[in-house]
Amino acid sequence: MVVRVGVVGAGIMGADHARTVARWVSGAEVALLADPDLQRATAAADAVGCAAVADPFALVAAPEVDAVVVASPDATHPALVRACVEAGKPVLCEKPLSPTLTESAALLADLGADARLVSLGFMRRFDPGYTDLRAIVAAGTIGAPVTVHSVGRGVSSGPGATSESSVTNSAVHDLDIVAWLLGSPVVEVSWHDPRRSSGVGFADPQLILLRTADGVLSTVDVFLNARYGYDVRCEVVGETGTASLREPARTEVDTALARQTAYGADWRPRFAEAYRLELQAWVDAISGGDPGPLASAHDGLVASAVADAVIASMHADGARVRVEVPVVGGAA
Amino acid sequence: MVVRVGVVGAGIMGADHARTVARWVSGAEVALLADPDLQRATAAADAVGCAAVADPFALVAAPEVDAVVVASPDATHPALVRACVEAGKPVLCEKPLSPTLTESAALLADLGADARLVSLGFMRRFDPGYTDLRAIVAAGTIGAPVTVHSVGRGVSSGPGATSESSVTNSAVHDLDIVAWLLGSPVVEVSWHDPRRSSGVGFADPQLILLRTADGVLSTVDVFLNARYGYDVRCEVVGETGTASLREPARTEVDTALARQTAYGADWRPRFAEAYRLELQAWVDAISGGDPGPLASAHDGLVASAVADAVIASMHADGARVRVEVPVVGGAA
Amino acid sequence: MVVRVGVVGAGIMGADHARTVARWVSGAEVALLADPDLQRATAAADAVGCAAVADPFALVAAPEVDAVVVASPDATHPALVRACVEAGKPVLCEKPLSPTLTESAALLADLGADARLVSLGFMRRFDPGYTDLRAIVAAGTIGAPVTVHSVGRGVSSGPGATSESSVTNSAVHDLDIVAWLLGSPVVEVSWHDPRRSSGVGFADPQLILLRTADGVLSTVDVFLNARYGYDVRCEVVGETGTASLREPARTEVDTALARQTAYGADWRPRFAEAYRLELQAWVDAISGGDPGPLASAHDGLVASAVADAVIASMHADGARVRVEVPVVGGAA
Amino acid sequence: MVVRVGVVGAGIMGADHARTVARWVSGAEVALLADPDLQRATAAADAVGCAAVADPFALVAAPEVDAVVVASPDATHPALVRACVEAGKPVLCEKPLSPTLTESAALLADLGADARLVSLGFMRRFDPGYTDLRAIVAAGTIGAPVTVHSVGRGVSSGPGATSESSVTNSAVHDLDIVAWLLGSPVVEVSWHDPRRSSGVGFADPQLILLRTADGVLSTVDVFLNARYGYDVRCEVVGETGTASLREPARTEVDTALARQTAYGADWRPRFAEAYRLELQAWVDAISGGDPGPLASAHDGLVASAVADAVIASMHADGARVRVEVPVVGGAA
Repeated sequence: MVVRVGVVGAGIMGADHARTVARWVSGAEVALLADPDLQRATAAADAVGCAAVADPFALVAAPEVDAVVVASPDATHPALVRACVEAGKPVLCEKPLSPTLTESAALLADLGADARLVSLGFMRRFDPGYTDLRAIVAAGTIGAPVTVHSVGRGVSSGPGATSESSVTNSAVHDLDIVAWLLGSPVVEVSWHDPRRSSGVGFADPQLILLRTADGVLSTVDVFLNARYGYDVRCEVVGETGTASLREPARTEVDTALARQTAYGADWRPRFAEAYRLELQAWVDAISGGDPGPLASAHDGLVASAVADAVIASMHADGARVRVEVPVVGGAA
Repeated sequence: MVVRVGVVGAGIMGADHARTVARWVSGAEVALLADPDLQRATAAADAVGCAAVADPFALVAAPEVDAVVVASPDATHPALVRACVEAGKPVLCEKPLSPTLTESAALLADLGADARLVSLGFMRRFDPGYTDLRAIVAAGTIGAPVTVHSVGRGVSSGPGATSESSVTNSAVHDLDIVAWLLGSPVVEVSWHDPRRSSGVGFADPQLILLRTADGVLSTVDVFLNARYGYDVRCEVVGETGTASLREPARTEVDTALARQTAYGADWRPRFAEAYRLELQAWVDAISGGDPGPLASAHDGLVASAVADAVIASMHADGARVRVEVPVVGGAA
Repeated sequence: MVVRVGVVGAGIMGADHARTVARWVSGAEVALLADPDLQRATAAADAVGCAAVADPFALVAAPEVDAVVVASPDATHPALVRACVEAGKPVLCEKPLSPTLTESAALLADLGADARLVSLGFMRRFDPGYTDLRAIVAAGTIGAPVTVHSVGRGVSSGPGATSESSVTNSAVHDLDIVAWLLGSPVVEVSWHDPRRSSGVGFADPQLILLRTADGVLSTVDVFLNARYGYDVRCEVVGETGTASLREPARTEVDTALARQTAYGADWRPRFAEAYRLELQAWVDAISGGDPGPLASAHDGLVASAVADAVIASMHADGARVRVEVPVVGGAA
Repeated sequence: MVVRVGVVGAGIMGADHARTVARWVSGAEVALLADPDLQRATAAADAVGCAAVADPFALVAAPEVDAVVVASPDATHPALVRACVEAGKPVLCEKPLSPTLTESAALLADLGADARLVSLGFMRRFDPGYTDLRAIVAAGTIGAPVTVHSVGRGVSSGPGATSESSVTNSAVHDLDIVAWLLGSPVVEVSWHDPRRSSGVGFADPQLILLRTADGVLSTVDVFLNARYGYDVRCEVVGETGTASLREPARTEVDTALARQTAYGADWRPRFAEAYRLELQAWVDAISGGDPGPLASAHDGLVASAVADAVIASMHADGARVRVEVPVVGGAA
């Protein structure tokens, strides 16, 4: 059986997902691509040899689409996810589930048990480095964890970025992955502001402290305008040792009095493998196979609740804030 | 269109290829698996959800098989490749094309233009590290190459390994990849023997010097019983810089007064990605897509000719030996 | 001119300093060694070919002693430093200047302008890695700093270690070095507690946040019982790049399926070069040469004030605490 | 006792040695500096606060000079060494002992037992990386050695460099250090020529194979015009593991989409520590202390004999050439 995938959104992320599904995912093909900008939709569709439509809801309804990847603007996510679930179609929604925690909770409450059709795009869980790291922690190689240091940096922030969107759009990956690495939810957070990088109109970098239920206290260093490259680092410190991601460069070049390894300019080269493995697992799960560490809608709700608490701390002079995850019926 | 692949051989390599095609390759499925040891064939077939047969020629002839991966013992390669070509089916043959240069040349002469149906399993060409390295060289980043240092080491040699089989089975990868990195064929070789590792019944390690047509002189350090891990290294030195593969470990662990990164015990983890990409490119090419750097039957013939020259040097006290590639009709 | 050095204290640090002065420092010799445990004093003195006494004040007064290194227990520091200054002899005092901020401030007030005879043992300032890092920051290579991540870990804490002594004895190095790297004093701190390592009777690890006057917010991760090795890390993040200390291992060994680099079991191998350079600079300064980044008594007072604020935060549930450096007459 | 050192030669190396002795060596001072270019001599002497003379033999004879460092042009070495020995003064002679093997042998024969006053400047033996590596090999950590890969590269060759001087002036360090690491003399060599770097008027790079008496076969890759930086690498491969020097950079900088570590432009930063430790050991030995791995005149003779054999191979189309060390009376 081949899963016929519809991709909503022909921006950077949507076009990338379409290419990945078409080129690299076993048991899947891209059947249709939707974007209100039909020219953009057509270009992306041509690249993978499928048809394009302007209306994403038409895509969701199309009989030749078995499952949907949602990579459209954040605000459109809830309605599209709802439509997919109503059509009985599995959907992989790029994070966030919705721009606000309230809306996410309402969506999940409405979906009830059908929320099981929804997966969230926390692709780091599929990155081979992170999965190795989690296995090392789980094997007890470094003893019980005591702290995690998570670093996420980019070259420059996109248009419209704010202190808050740094948390909900970027740091949210760290908020999810720290809890996932530890197998313990974040229960308390606080937000701190390093010296702001000059020429950036919002708090950047940011330093976030996370307390998980196991007592571990973690640091998250998020810096969207770090200039030097797209760089993700993670160290888990345990009672008897410490384990870290290594720099992923495969080659090094020595010229002009320096040894050099390259950084990517954005997240795509760093997480290309993770996106491929995530989409493969999603397709496998649709075909009855193993979903692996695929994030659920509820994982998305939890990450949103943590992000909400971080923003609350940001607005309360760095006070410690408890994480409150809304209780929704069938979603746990 | 889905390419229905038959896999001949249910040993380590065959079972691995079957799993890779079934699990990770887009546009392909495993249709049939053959091994004279039917129990082994059945086990490997069950793992990927296909049928098994004992007779590999039956597999080649089976109507539900569009294309064949040959991963059976070396001596069986020529007859199987011949059968695939006669059946008009694309075949990806694990190296070597045949155990002897004479037989390889004869096979290619017989196949004529149909040799284009045959690909050889030089998977290193698909390893992202090697492809980066080749791109760096091609971009002129390090200037014109002057020397290459290639290292291939394993934990322990398989049963029946000899000084000669070290060259034809293991070093042959280096013989292919050095020429491929440089874009220049090996024209002269010499063989040298470091101190033999105690307890090993043949020359191990071995040091091989390769002269390519561009004048570059390269070293190949092959050590099958290096004990410490499966380790492949490569440095290309140019007139203005040098470029190297980096250690591929994704994580590091610090415990017990040491920082550690892990080696695999054999070649599979190191080249899992390369095998996947090679099989994907082969399937793509069958479907009319881009074969990428997929090695041809003639590439296999060339590597065999180089290996032959190395063994001639081994038997002539390390004398320099010219590489003679047999001229066969339609195979270039 | 050869500076005749007297060393007070024949414990690990004192014996080490004596050996370093005798063996490696140009323009100096060890003239006398003092320790109340005369047997220990004699053993250490024999190792460097000098005489030993039990009474440290006799050493300070001895005419054959030009200058004094104080490496005795913390509580003895103020009286010894006072005696040295009264005798008009330069003194290099291991940190801390005294166990309490109050006592340090009183000492400095008493010494007045003569405090210029006193240097403090913040040897990290002489470590070639840290001096490189400071030069990189000063050169603007990474732009204006925004955050620093400082990590100090050891194998196991000494007898009598407490949550407070972790700050005053260990983290104090980080408190000094972060300000020194940035060229900006610490003005505000907060203390946070990761999950406590099991079997350790005090808060370990600890996480400290430092705000320097330039607005930079830094993290200090101190873990005395990290088990895996003595490990010091430091990263300075700037607006356009980031710079880090590298692992100092000079060799790597690959055996048993792992590549390994070694950690020292304590701080001595890591900072042997720093101690040598610090003692050399101290001796040079006595002879009228360049003191380099040698820490003054006032630097010691400042670090104590920062440590005091950290402990105040520790006792106030992690509240942010301003650093108050006592104003003492002639010491700035 | 302070050893009063006279330094012959105020070029790069002589001035550097003078600075090192004056600044960093315990128990020594620079008493006099000699160079036929008196202006240059005076400049170097002023930098270390000593007097200068034009005539090096006057320096050797000067009563205020206890021991001599010879860092003048190669051709002047034998006469200066002879003068030092006749004056009964210890001498540390930069390599080579003399420009030709014949002359070196004649010198040693003349000196007889007094050759014990002569040390040779093979400073790599004092580099902490190399001494660690030798200790690892000696400890059996990697099993019995089977091969060594030694790499020595520089930015650009000095004026007058030739294919032969690459061996006698640069590769000679590798010829010494490989034997020293293994504790086994080189008995046979062969010389091979990679593609010559364009624009260089002699064979550069060069590849040399060394057979030591223990049967180990080693490679030496020498490239004087490697452009990218001064770079020394060494790997010792044993029966159960492999050990390597690590890149010595202490810091790394991430900017402009690359992580970078710096190379020095010449050998001085790389071996500053080795030179200091060598000079210290030489001074210690003069004062009756431990010479450590200080190279003797005979070690210099042996290295010259190996270099001679390499050049003979160079002139004999890469033939294998036996190393013949001249037998001289009292020098072993």
